[in-house]
Amino acid sequence: MSSDPLAVGPASSLIDQFRAILDEGGVMTGDDVSDRHPGYFMTRVEADVLLRPETTDQLSQVMALCHAAGQPVVIQGGMSGWVRATQTRPGDVILSLERMNRIESIDPANRTAIVQAGVILEKFQDHLEAHGLSFPLDLGGRGSCQLGGNAATNAGGMRVIRYGMMREQVLGMEVVLADGRVLSSMNQMIKNNTGYDLKQLFIGSEGTLGVITRLVLRLRERPVSSNTALVCADSFDRIAKLLRHVDGALGGLLSAFELVDNNFYRVNTGVGRHPAPLGSDERYYAMIEALGSDHERDRDLFEAVLTDAAEKGLFDDAIIARSEKDRAAIWGIREDLEHIVHDFQPFYAFDVSLPVGAMEAYMGEVTQRLKAIWPDGGIAFLGHVGDGNLHIAIGAGTPQDREQVEACVYEPLRPIGGSVSAEHGIGLEKKPWLSITRSPLERGLMREIKQMFDPKNILNPGKIFAEDAA
Amino acid sequence: MSSDPLAVGPASSLIDQFRAILDEGGVMTGDDVSDRHPGYFMTRVEADVLLRPETTDQLSQVMALCHAAGQPVVIQGGMSGWVRATQTRPGDVILSLERMNRIESIDPANRTAIVQAGVILEKFQDHLEAHGLSFPLDLGGRGSCQLGGNAATNAGGMRVIRYGMMREQVLGMEVVLADGRVLSSMNQMIKNNTGYDLKQLFIGSEGTLGVITRLVLRLRERPVSSNTALVCADSFDRIAKLLRHVDGALGGLLSAFELVDNNFYRVNTGVGRHPAPLGSDERYYAMIEALGSDHERDRDLFEAVLTDAAEKGLFDDAIIARSEKDRAAIWGIREDLEHIVHDFQPFYAFDVSLPVGAMEAYMGEVTQRLKAIWPDGGIAFLGHVGDGNLHIAIGAGTPQDREQVEACVYEPLRPIGGSVSAEHGIGLEKKPWLSITRSPLERGLMREIKQMFDPKNILNPGKIFAEDAA
Repeated sequence: MSSDPLAVGPASSLIDQFRAILDEGGVMTGDDVSDRHPGYFMTRVEADVLLRPETTDQLSQVMALCHAAGQPVVIQGGMSGWVRATQTRPGDVILSLERMNRIESIDPANRTAIVQAGVILEKFQDHLEAHGLSFPLDLGGRGSCQLGGNAATNAGGMRVIRYGMMREQVLGMEVVLADGRVLSSMNQMIKNNTGYDLKQLFIGSEGTLGVITRLVLRLRERPVSSNTALVCADSFDRIAKLLRHVDGALGGLLSAFELVDNNFYRVNTGVGRHPAPLGSDERYYAMIEALGSDHERDRDLFEAVLTDAAEKGLFDDAIIARSEKDRAAIWGIREDLEHIVHDFQPFYAFDVSLPVGAMEAYMGEVTQRLKAIWPDGGIAFLGHVGDGNLHIAIGAGTPQDREQVEACVYEPLRPIGGSVSAEHGIGLEKKPWLSITRSPLERGLMREIKQMFDPKNILNPGKIFAEDAA
Repeated sequence: MSSDPLAVGPASSLIDQFRAILDEGGVMTGDDVSDRHPGYFMTRVEADVLLRPETTDQLSQVMALCHAAGQPVVIQGGMSGWVRATQTRPGDVILSLERMNRIESIDPANRTAIVQAGVILEKFQDHLEAHGLSFPLDLGGRGSCQLGGNAATNAGGMRVIRYGMMREQVLGMEVVLADGRVLSSMNQMIKNNTGYDLKQLFIGSEGTLGVITRLVLRLRERPVSSNTALVCADSFDRIAKLLRHVDGALGGLLSAFELVDNNFYRVNTGVGRHPAPLGSDERYYAMIEALGSDHERDRDLFEAVLTDAAEKGLFDDAIIARSEKDRAAIWGIREDLEHIVHDFQPFYAFDVSLPVGAMEAYMGEVTQRLKAIWPDGGIAFLGHVGDGNLHIAIGAGTPQDREQVEACVYEPLRPIGGSVSAEHGIGLEKKPWLSITRSPLERGLMREIKQMFDPKNILNPGKIFAEDAA
């Protein structure tokens, strides 16, 4: 039953067996596979075969075959990840969830939804409007990312400060294990303390422990009001104090507190780009958003809280969005990455987390390390400061300098207990740096868990861990 | 190195070794052990030795010894659990966290705290007042339960609808493994996607996978305003609609939505007990609480939301607390369990969860099953309806009828995907019923995890799983 997929690709007999399980459109080979979008920071699709099951049962049969044959499988969702967790090698089989895209049911009384893993986030958000409900997870990749991928990577995004990460939205899960067994843990309740919470292992496991096929998701009542402001301040200390002030004073309404630094603000408000709502000389700019239930009342509260913050000297200038157009303009400055990728070449993007109190010193140290090597290098900080999450954009050196650039960013995290990945995951991109955040014992236990769930190491092999992981 | 602890208790040489690690007050034997509070629903402490380490290092040395000797260990926190998860057998060693009770540090900017596991919940809540911060977990056992136990049991309580369970409050954790190794995952950030989130396994594991010794906890800004109401309605359907209405209309402010039925309300508002703020003829009573940032504004909103709900016909009568005394009176009716335990004899208490839409039919079926056997039996429902969590109090039959009473409550959960334990856990109490909520595959994977972390089955053996678990 064994094969040597790395040398020759899946045996044709295995492909025939896939065809017996799936319909004609379910098995792709040749150019149909290699012509597909390889994903960010990846040059091409190397896998030979791509499978597109429509049901859990089909997927289970596929995995049973792959397990018996020792066939490596890479699971692909919406391909919006940034850490090459979906990269393939010659001989790999791709398992795409794109045809498992049904929203199966919405329960308004229980405020839950049951979906297949391939449902696209934005479509799900839109679908809930008619029910007066919302799914609070929101991120830049909303138009392409899939809910199963959001779970497999524990996606974060803009509203984590209020609603938590994807982990907090997942109540239940169906997973096809490496050997094809179907683990059904489709719990629909917020509370279910009955032994170990197995689903937590799959959330954030980046396709290395099982294939998430269905989800029970927690929904929220749809917010009615939205208030947005852009403020600026000349010190990080004031921004940190402002965060605490607005979080407390807005009661439960604060839904986003985002930061961009002067460098990033200047890039995005340059000539011919976004209009600058505030002057360009401040060190930090923060986008503040509150979601609530009453237009007038919430607007009054939002303005009162910002007025109070101004009187306390927590910022220098501010603008409050008066229209949807204003709101989009403010968020455009935060979300648009096109210009920074254009200006910062070669472009390096990072995603780290660290205690808020350590952020200013950390930003200073990374900048200093970088400038010591590349005095003309570009560096900009932005991110979800309310969650302790910084993104860093760097344009410096050459593509061959990656490791040295990475060292500038990651090494200073070591003494402060920071994380080399806040929300992007490890994939292949951050594998060499995992040891900064995870101890030898933690990594050893992760490998034991991998060994338990995937003893033949066929699920996304080589991701997260070193190749000898399992 | 092996011993036969069940037959003879820990060997005296092992006790001598404990004494070499701990101080005089750290090792208790004889009456000092057997005279201790055995915990709810347990008649006596059967263990021979109780250890009270003060540091992680001491605890680690103790576990290394127990592992080498194959010595069973039962971990005890505040002993406020309801499922006999801390019950001991002759020959067991008790590991009490009561002297590991230091609040190590508070980081106001990052809004995190580092604590030892033995800190009592209420002491921690009180300590945070001076920092303008709060820890939102709150439950009846607050005066005795410990934060480590809250994590080991994934405690829930009154404010889960807004802040989530203990799982959502834990950012990082230090755990002593069965063999004494110290797993340090003291992450301080909301976001840290770097491989499998190991701490999730220990949360809710009831002392079967490791000893939680320290925690990094997420804190929140301290709420300023609190508004509380008691409402009543003649149908569950209206209560369910009211829940959605107030959750949406209060924006992010709703912090509790609790239910008691007519039977429970009558017991607690009987002659000489609590005053009845509303008449006693309604089928359901709901306690609604909103926490916010502004006294006047939040009170106005709270009243407007309830007025609107009244106009929509979502309840029959309501009273809003005008003082702390009013507030305490409303919560007293919900939290006081003394009278129901007195009136319902023999007293059986249950804690289940199920989809909100299935609750009314479920309550009807349990009542019908019970009354078919014991026509004069008492039954009352209460609980955290916003979380899909019902508690059920039953007074029927004799203490020997336990299994039959349990069947009335648990069997109807099977077809609706309910859970035999919402927040109390499994312990010994619900072990025979675990299969209603967890499939053979789920239970098999739990046992594999147990085997991986505790190959000698020395940590709280026999809890959650059948005795042959590992």
